[in-house]
Amino acid sequence: MREFFQVADVEEARAQALGFASVGSGRVPLEGALGRVLAADVVAAADLPGFSRSTMDGFAVRASSTFGASDGAPALLAVVGSVEMGRSAEVVVGPGEAAGIPTGGMLPKGADAVVMVEHTEPVDESTVEVMRSVAPGANVIGAADDARAGDTALERGTRLRPPEVGLLAALGVTEVEVFDRPRVAILSTGDEVVPAEETPGPGRVRDVNRHSLGAFVESCGGVALPRGIVPDEFDALLEACRAACDLADVVLISGGSSVGARDLTIEVLEALPESRVLLHGVAMRPGKPTILADVAGRPVWGLPGHVASAMVVFSVLVRPQIEHLGGATRRRSVLVPATLTRNLASAHGRREFVRVRLRERDGTLRAEPVPGRSGLVRTMVGADGLIEIGRDVEGLFEGSVVRVELF
Amino acid sequence: MREFFQVADVEEARAQALGFASVGSGRVPLEGALGRVLAADVVAAADLPGFSRSTMDGFAVRASSTFGASDGAPALLAVVGSVEMGRSAEVVVGPGEAAGIPTGGMLPKGADAVVMVEHTEPVDESTVEVMRSVAPGANVIGAADDARAGDTALERGTRLRPPEVGLLAALGVTEVEVFDRPRVAILSTGDEVVPAEETPGPGRVRDVNRHSLGAFVESCGGVALPRGIVPDEFDALLEACRAACDLADVVLISGGSSVGARDLTIEVLEALPESRVLLHGVAMRPGKPTILADVAGRPVWGLPGHVASAMVVFSVLVRPQIEHLGGATRRRSVLVPATLTRNLASAHGRREFVRVRLRERDGTLRAEPVPGRSGLVRTMVGADGLIEIGRDVEGLFEGSVVRVELF
Repeated sequence: MREFFQVADVEEARAQALGFASVGSGRVPLEGALGRVLAADVVAAADLPGFSRSTMDGFAVRASSTFGASDGAPALLAVVGSVEMGRSAEVVVGPGEAAGIPTGGMLPKGADAVVMVEHTEPVDESTVEVMRSVAPGANVIGAADDARAGDTALERGTRLRPPEVGLLAALGVTEVEVFDRPRVAILSTGDEVVPAEETPGPGRVRDVNRHSLGAFVESCGGVALPRGIVPDEFDALLEACRAACDLADVVLISGGSSVGARDLTIEVLEALPESRVLLHGVAMRPGKPTILADVAGRPVWGLPGHVASAMVVFSVLVRPQIEHLGGATRRRSVLVPATLTRNLASAHGRREFVRVRLRERDGTLRAEPVPGRSGLVRTMVGADGLIEIGRDVEGLFEGSVVRVELF
Repeated sequence: MREFFQVADVEEARAQALGFASVGSGRVPLEGALGRVLAADVVAAADLPGFSRSTMDGFAVRASSTFGASDGAPALLAVVGSVEMGRSAEVVVGPGEAAGIPTGGMLPKGADAVVMVEHTEPVDESTVEVMRSVAPGANVIGAADDARAGDTALERGTRLRPPEVGLLAALGVTEVEVFDRPRVAILSTGDEVVPAEETPGPGRVRDVNRHSLGAFVESCGGVALPRGIVPDEFDALLEACRAACDLADVVLISGGSSVGARDLTIEVLEALPESRVLLHGVAMRPGKPTILADVAGRPVWGLPGHVASAMVVFSVLVRPQIEHLGGATRRRSVLVPATLTRNLASAHGRREFVRVRLRERDGTLRAEPVPGRSGLVRTMVGADGLIEIGRDVEGLFEGSVVRVELF
């Protein structure tokens, strides 16, 4: 038996993948900031809200004026005015007094709570019955409850989802400093590979990785730079790699799973200036023939040529790297717990990644391993994500709870 | 006590939200198709793969030639040639014969399996020892295993993730028919609202919904069309709604949670031509003052003015609608099961949506309710998603398994 390379553990490979510095940053308008990652803390310039507001239509009161009030024994309060929407509250509310207030209206001086209009009954123009006792602060959002002037409202490394975009708007931040989107060059190699728009001749196949890896790059916040198909020749691949390193933050060389092609990729990576091979084989299945080099501070990957294997390696190793390079301090996805629907055997000595689809039955989320050979693209299409079987585990039993990394 | 409107159940509201016809469709290049939804089945024009391929470096053989082979008793096979990558396999493999084959190479005539090179030992140029028995089909992907010519490879209504993009490339489909992205007009109302770039005067607030709802629209595949701030006047709102209906597939009117503003929205919706109010209040918290009308076949929503409430209503009711209008047959997100970290009380008579953050501890995914008043934007920022407490349930106990709808 021949051994082609010294394989690394998946954990070691993950650590190597994350050992690169993040990309630069720049300012973008808030309208285009969804999904981007903050490159600087956002500090509140003023209190948010700027004043105490009612969260209900009703009457602003001193809470103590309502103590003991009930349907049977309402409190009788003098209506001393009303608050207008979008205006400073001019009226002052004393003991035994009330002022009409709309939802969102500014709480007037003297008042510390709001009674919902549903719990009041008008007696005449200047008197209202209150049928409920309210505590101080009831139905009110206090000034600065969302953020106090000078507070860090959002931290560097936060990925902006819709709620964060809303908070930024509320703070008046309409331009934000965000990390650049990592640029990822994609080189397809292999004399047998033709562009997707061509009909492959005998023994030839279409360039799928350009498209599937490109889509994966975009889906994790990167910019895909497809660089076409490179022939299996040392000089051509060297030149293509050099050019890709000049314009991208990450380079993916896909294809070349055969020993000869793998050897060529390694030779080229070793020949590039300031290059150091970090990984030459990973103890995972699929994905064993994965290569990672540091080329002048840039990660350059040699991914398996198998389309499905390349997608799995991307999900397991490259995606966390791109998210990390893009400055995110937290993974975008959660690992979804689900119940395994059948026994899974696994080989000792390498971590296995199994495609599963998620289905709900009887209120339980179930992870069904996708049938079919791992080389088939349709097994990826049929899957919602991956589960891991540990290196030193012989398999997983039906009914065990697994954690699914979604695509 | 006054009753303002007859509220609908959340289930009824969801059904009403999904009762609209999907938008049109058009062709886009594969490069821009990620996240889009197929508007037509994709049928394989040819077998995929087009020929049987090896998944390993090794030797193509008749499986029967290896039966009984082991380290102690290897099978001795005659090497009759080798398959070149990207070429038609010219050699024919008979009983007792083998042909060298690279990963991805075309399986030659006569062969039905591949022995991995690791399980072989060269004897001389024309003889190889095989130390393992392989079954027919071993280390081979058969022609048409991924798709047979004429098969439906992907169905109308499928949202294109990276694996689907890869399958389309493999099939040579570089342009696809996809549903248009639903166009969603966003109108902010309220005399107290100022644009996010302005500093609000006393009693005034910034227009947050334009940005938070816009980001939610983009995140579920729609196109946000912000239409600015409309004054609280019948004629102005009527004209703004009419114009929005002309250019959008969905209209969101946000703001106007006070009774007067709600009344205005309803009056305007009733005054629009071909308009029918479908929902006027929903038994949910937050989100009770939600309005939905059918205006000449278009959904027009009146959302709560509270920023956080509007986001919750969007997640619960509007997002499924936009995904449905966009042609998707399956929800984009899964409901993530997690263990509740504390007791939650709830009012009878309405469904409650509670913001939770997901944290993993001791291998268990835990849903922690986010503390703070529901009107605060930061409670949305601190949350990963929502859990539901049913209408007729008094609460949920610590330790119960809840299902989290992620933002």
